[in-house]
Amino acid sequence: MKPTAELLAMIEQALRQVSYPTQPVGLYEPIAYVLDGGGKRIRPMLTLMGYSLYRDDVERALPAALALETYHNHTLLHDDLMDHAEVRRGRPVVHKKWDENTAILSGDTMLIMAFRHLLAVDMPQPQAIWDLFSRSAQEICEGQQYDVNFESRTDVEEEEYIEMIRLKTSVLLACSLKTGALVADAPAADADALYRFAERVGLAFQLQDDYLDVYGDPKVFGKKIGGDILCGKKTFLLIRALKKADADQRQRLLDLLADHTMADEAKIQAVRNLYDDLHIADDCTEAINAYYAEARKALDSVALPQAQKAPLWEYAASLLGRTK
Amino acid sequence: MKPTAELLAMIEQALRQVSYPTQPVGLYEPIAYVLDGGGKRIRPMLTLMGYSLYRDDVERALPAALALETYHNHTLLHDDLMDHAEVRRGRPVVHKKWDENTAILSGDTMLIMAFRHLLAVDMPQPQAIWDLFSRSAQEICEGQQYDVNFESRTDVEEEEYIEMIRLKTSVLLACSLKTGALVADAPAADADALYRFAERVGLAFQLQDDYLDVYGDPKVFGKKIGGDILCGKKTFLLIRALKKADADQRQRLLDLLADHTMADEAKIQAVRNLYDDLHIADDCTEAINAYYAEARKALDSVALPQAQKAPLWEYAASLLGRTK
Repeated sequence: MKPTAELLAMIEQALRQVSYPTQPVGLYEPIAYVLDGGGKRIRPMLTLMGYSLYRDDVERALPAALALETYHNHTLLHDDLMDHAEVRRGRPVVHKKWDENTAILSGDTMLIMAFRHLLAVDMPQPQAIWDLFSRSAQEICEGQQYDVNFESRTDVEEEEYIEMIRLKTSVLLACSLKTGALVADAPAADADALYRFAERVGLAFQLQDDYLDVYGDPKVFGKKIGGDILCGKKTFLLIRALKKADADQRQRLLDLLADHTMADEAKIQAVRNLYDDLHIADDCTEAINAYYAEARKALDSVALPQAQKAPLWEYAASLLGRTK
Repeated sequence: MKPTAELLAMIEQALRQVSYPTQPVGLYEPIAYVLDGGGKRIRPMLTLMGYSLYRDDVERALPAALALETYHNHTLLHDDLMDHAEVRRGRPVVHKKWDENTAILSGDTMLIMAFRHLLAVDMPQPQAIWDLFSRSAQEICEGQQYDVNFESRTDVEEEEYIEMIRLKTSVLLACSLKTGALVADAPAADADALYRFAERVGLAFQLQDDYLDVYGDPKVFGKKIGGDILCGKKTFLLIRALKKADADQRQRLLDLLADHTMADEAKIQAVRNLYDDLHIADDCTEAINAYYAEARKALDSVALPQAQKAPLWEYAASLLGRTK
């Protein structure tokens, strides 16, 4: 497998080489802007890695990698609009730099362009790949809808939450990796195991994001600590805390979340203290480790020599901030 | 070919039989609502008719017909949001009945479901059909963007306008008919001629819509007369009038359009008088007839017996309110 830095360079180059129609400018300029926004390119990386497990001519999987990255950025564009976000990767979002209608229409076009990139792939199993991609896209919409629904609920169960983040986040990682494998004509059992591997990595990744929002080092985390607490987001930590809390603790937690007069820092500290009393950090770490172990098991079941799979494992570990 | 009433009944039944996931309700209920809104189902009708030109087992083309209707309703849903429309087919639009985020996300899901319907088609030429569908979808986004751009311009040329309505309206009619033909494995030359036929019918249809907005019988037209004039829409009539007008007439027309103090009826009448002075009605009728003749010619070139093509011609004529 080519080194990850080399794969990333291939993706960036391919993204730059996508040729957009010059007209209408108002439609294609925002698309180029969004795709030029950087990011870790995790999804196309997984596609190229999934392909590279089986074949060396990784260029052949590039259109599929572009499809996944374009699709992912379509979801970011529309999610940012729905969330009234202002900034993404340090730059104004499309509905701020242009306007809301531009965000809707350019976002729609990106979804179509993602399909068109996928159409350019020389495919051994077209039906399987099309089905995987379109089903995943639909599941991601479902995940976003559940996420919206959860905002107005205080009775979200842990299982529902895990299913929401699986749909909203993990499914696309899993689809990305499996697509690469399918383009390389991998055996079905391997492709499914790779799907499960990435899905489990995605769950670990999302729970770790929940964890770091409360316990992370602000210098390393890259976001402000406590953001989830301040906006009352139903994270794994909050859901578990509400479940373990006795009646008094539960009431205190709900009161804290509903209190909009308290200073931010005080509120974050008070919720964190409650989490500490309930040992929520340990619970979360345990859940992350369990998903991590499941991911390992899924990858182990892929019928390839361990050494061939090592770069993929290292990549996943690096995403989770772990070294071997 | 089955009678149009029978084809329409098949489409309505197929739409009712689409099974939506029951969860999340907030995502799928608006989709079922939109697709239950009636309408003439022109696009799926064209798909079934295109197929029926070549084969009798029209059920086989139903998933493709559903794809086209679902895609079309996706565009209506997002266009209504972008246009801040309130009502569609006598019912509140999705962003009013639910909210804007629901309109965005359910609309995205409809686009994906359209792809998934198409995926269910037993296809002899999958690559050609996928390419046609996705390219058309992208062109329709371009048409919508041009339409938006034209709102803030007074120098729209006739050619640009025709290209805009071709992209925004005709392309989908053409794609619908050609898709049906391709699913039936029609010869490429026929499929292309059918595309051109529906494209030209679409142009005639759109220009007729422009015409009826000014000269239609309100009882027959179904919309309020003069709506385009009041919102200053760049229609064929306005663009042609601005082109033919002398300096005085041009200034009077621009002043009229910019005047927001004048009573609606007086404004409509004054613009209509100017159009009459410039014989714009005749120009428009002539352009409609020219596209109608081009459509006829395209259909004549399809290598099938005249009698076999007659129902398609009659259907197009009926859409244009013409009898043989």
